[in-house]
Amino acid sequence: MIMLQDLLAQRANPDVPSALSGLFPQDTDPRALSFAAGSPREDLFPVAAMRAAFDTAITENGAHLFQYQTAQGNPGLRAKLAARIGKWGQVTTTADNVVLTVGGQQAIELVAKAVLNVGDEIAVEVPTYVGALAAFDLYQPTYHAVPLQADGLDLDRLEDTLKRHPRIKLLYTVPDYHNPTGITMSIAKRRQLVDLANRYDFIILEDSPYRDLGYTHVPLPAIKSFDTAGRVVFVSSLSKILMPGLRTGWLVADGDLLAAILRVRLASDLETANVVHAAIDAYLEANDLDAHIDALRANYRAQCAALVQGLTAYFPDEVGYTRPDGGFFDWVTLPEEVDAAALLTQAAIPQAHVTYVPGTNFYPNRDVHNGLRLCFTGLTPHEIDVGMQRLGAVVKQAVRGARPVV
Amino acid sequence: MIMLQDLLAQRANPDVPSALSGLFPQDTDPRALSFAAGSPREDLFPVAAMRAAFDTAITENGAHLFQYQTAQGNPGLRAKLAARIGKWGQVTTTADNVVLTVGGQQAIELVAKAVLNVGDEIAVEVPTYVGALAAFDLYQPTYHAVPLQADGLDLDRLEDTLKRHPRIKLLYTVPDYHNPTGITMSIAKRRQLVDLANRYDFIILEDSPYRDLGYTHVPLPAIKSFDTAGRVVFVSSLSKILMPGLRTGWLVADGDLLAAILRVRLASDLETANVVHAAIDAYLEANDLDAHIDALRANYRAQCAALVQGLTAYFPDEVGYTRPDGGFFDWVTLPEEVDAAALLTQAAIPQAHVTYVPGTNFYPNRDVHNGLRLCFTGLTPHEIDVGMQRLGAVVKQAVRGARPVV
Repeated sequence: MIMLQDLLAQRANPDVPSALSGLFPQDTDPRALSFAAGSPREDLFPVAAMRAAFDTAITENGAHLFQYQTAQGNPGLRAKLAARIGKWGQVTTTADNVVLTVGGQQAIELVAKAVLNVGDEIAVEVPTYVGALAAFDLYQPTYHAVPLQADGLDLDRLEDTLKRHPRIKLLYTVPDYHNPTGITMSIAKRRQLVDLANRYDFIILEDSPYRDLGYTHVPLPAIKSFDTAGRVVFVSSLSKILMPGLRTGWLVADGDLLAAILRVRLASDLETANVVHAAIDAYLEANDLDAHIDALRANYRAQCAALVQGLTAYFPDEVGYTRPDGGFFDWVTLPEEVDAAALLTQAAIPQAHVTYVPGTNFYPNRDVHNGLRLCFTGLTPHEIDVGMQRLGAVVKQAVRGARPVV
Repeated sequence: MIMLQDLLAQRANPDVPSALSGLFPQDTDPRALSFAAGSPREDLFPVAAMRAAFDTAITENGAHLFQYQTAQGNPGLRAKLAARIGKWGQVTTTADNVVLTVGGQQAIELVAKAVLNVGDEIAVEVPTYVGALAAFDLYQPTYHAVPLQADGLDLDRLEDTLKRHPRIKLLYTVPDYHNPTGITMSIAKRRQLVDLANRYDFIILEDSPYRDLGYTHVPLPAIKSFDTAGRVVFVSSLSKILMPGLRTGWLVADGDLLAAILRVRLASDLETANVVHAAIDAYLEANDLDAHIDALRANYRAQCAALVQGLTAYFPDEVGYTRPDGGFFDWVTLPEEVDAAALLTQAAIPQAHVTYVPGTNFYPNRDVHNGLRLCFTGLTPHEIDVGMQRLGAVVKQAVRGARPVV
């Protein structure tokens, strides 16, 4: 095999690691407890109902179900999703503005593809979803990082950045139970963010796969609900509230942006599997999705509480952490001298048999090393307690080692 | 709604039409006969067997089927496809080198994404598949067009082009029952093409969705079968031999190229719907795909023969056409003065009630206007005869109108 690296695109340069490479550490020890991958719980998947839904969809639609359809996707499912974001996000839209995608990931990638030339400026909250950074990286933008506060994006810092960099085209945000921090943006900030977008002329990519998984309140109005100029693209997914193997995400867009997204979508993969979308449509006809989500919330709520309790009980005062009220994740901030990746390989895995995702890849410039993401969905409350106790012990060691005793 | 065009990427510029825009003309007249869209026949879809396969796959695999899996896709299906291209294409490979994609379209787009920077040089045979041009256009390459001969790509012209443009990175070809011409590349040329790629250091993208649909002989060895340097990416699809709504394509790649493709794939959509791939795997366990393909061939062979017969009987001598021995398409070359798009809207639709795809978009520089593509899969032999008679009449008018009577 000869080396063909000179024939690859810059975006695929193997010397520059991808934001998604080596993300999930492996620990094969039988005591291992994983807080790493953000996977939903398989034991809560509605498998029998979905099997019946596939059968119904194929029986009712026949051969035409399997013919080429449209880039936008199954109209019945699009109508239901439009109604859903109307009800739970206060976004007034119709099936005509919904596009079905291969998970939320493809929706993000399509927006990046429709908007970004090489070197174009974009703003992201930090830390942010690694998969979004990987998608943006394909189009080689110039990043501006804006910090998060307890109620979401720091809008003063964002406006400072916009004043200095008025050519910023796109802002990416996860406003609901943010990945990786669990933070939710306040309603006031959602409104103000749209005002900023109108004043500084940029597009908002609102990525909201966790919005239905709030453990203390119903979903807030989407940022898209404040959009009067067609400059917000709302993205969500069925991966976390139904099953990720359906690979069904969706977006809501308007006007020029919708046309551009559909155009690059058609050139990318024509359309996605209509049989799956028809099955989901049949599932939604025959089942109460909100009741299913209630059951998910009851489970995940207890897991989330166990995690926060463990962090409170077992972690030293020098360590910060968020208190999510929804979603899958908690974000831990170690003292600046402690490298979360080194702690993982040198102590958390070999001593504590606990895995997590070190936070560096959640920053576009990979310049912060003391954060880590914990996912609480894959373990029971008891396992979470045991894991936090073990991880807390090695974190204490590291903090003491990093700080000289006075 | 305000105009956001200034915020779009160049690749989505609405002032530049996409290669895929307005491709399929509509004629709502009850007499209308469509030779336009390249859709397979729905009445030949194995719907009942696929419904059973979905049921088997979900029953046997349970919840884990619907969890996140891998970017490469279902291992069982990959192994079967690797064996298939071994048997029918003489390509020695394994499941480890196969990637499942959203149709062949995504496979093409992923190769473009892994290889092309803005302005990079690529060579394509002309005319060529419009969807490939749309995928390449996303990455804004510089095109070099190489003509086709009756036995495939003109390799002398290709070598001339390579001498003048030694930085060409990628050559795209559809060697088997080519879209849009139906031409098949000879075995000798396949071997020579790989030699050229080794000497001039470029990648070959071999796109072969029709290879199983030969009406006179078994499939030829793939170009990939002559590849010893890992520089050929083989792409195929189940859309034409099973059903397009499954949105299942696949590629075979090696080494650096495989790694680059998987990297950009992960960033694009993570992975595709495992439930569909598991169902196809179950279908292939329970059914004889080759027997199904034999039935397709028996039908399409008669339709293909009717088309060539109609062209021979009803078209004037000034018009050229190919004689495909497989695939879906025939390519008609009108006298240079006759514009196929104008003929369609001014005569073929209003007078003959026949639609086809005008050929301009099959050329990367949109600089040839006298070709048209006919698809013969959607109509019965009798309808094909009627359609060719009607189209032949308006073509005769146009040819007489274009050529002064001496």
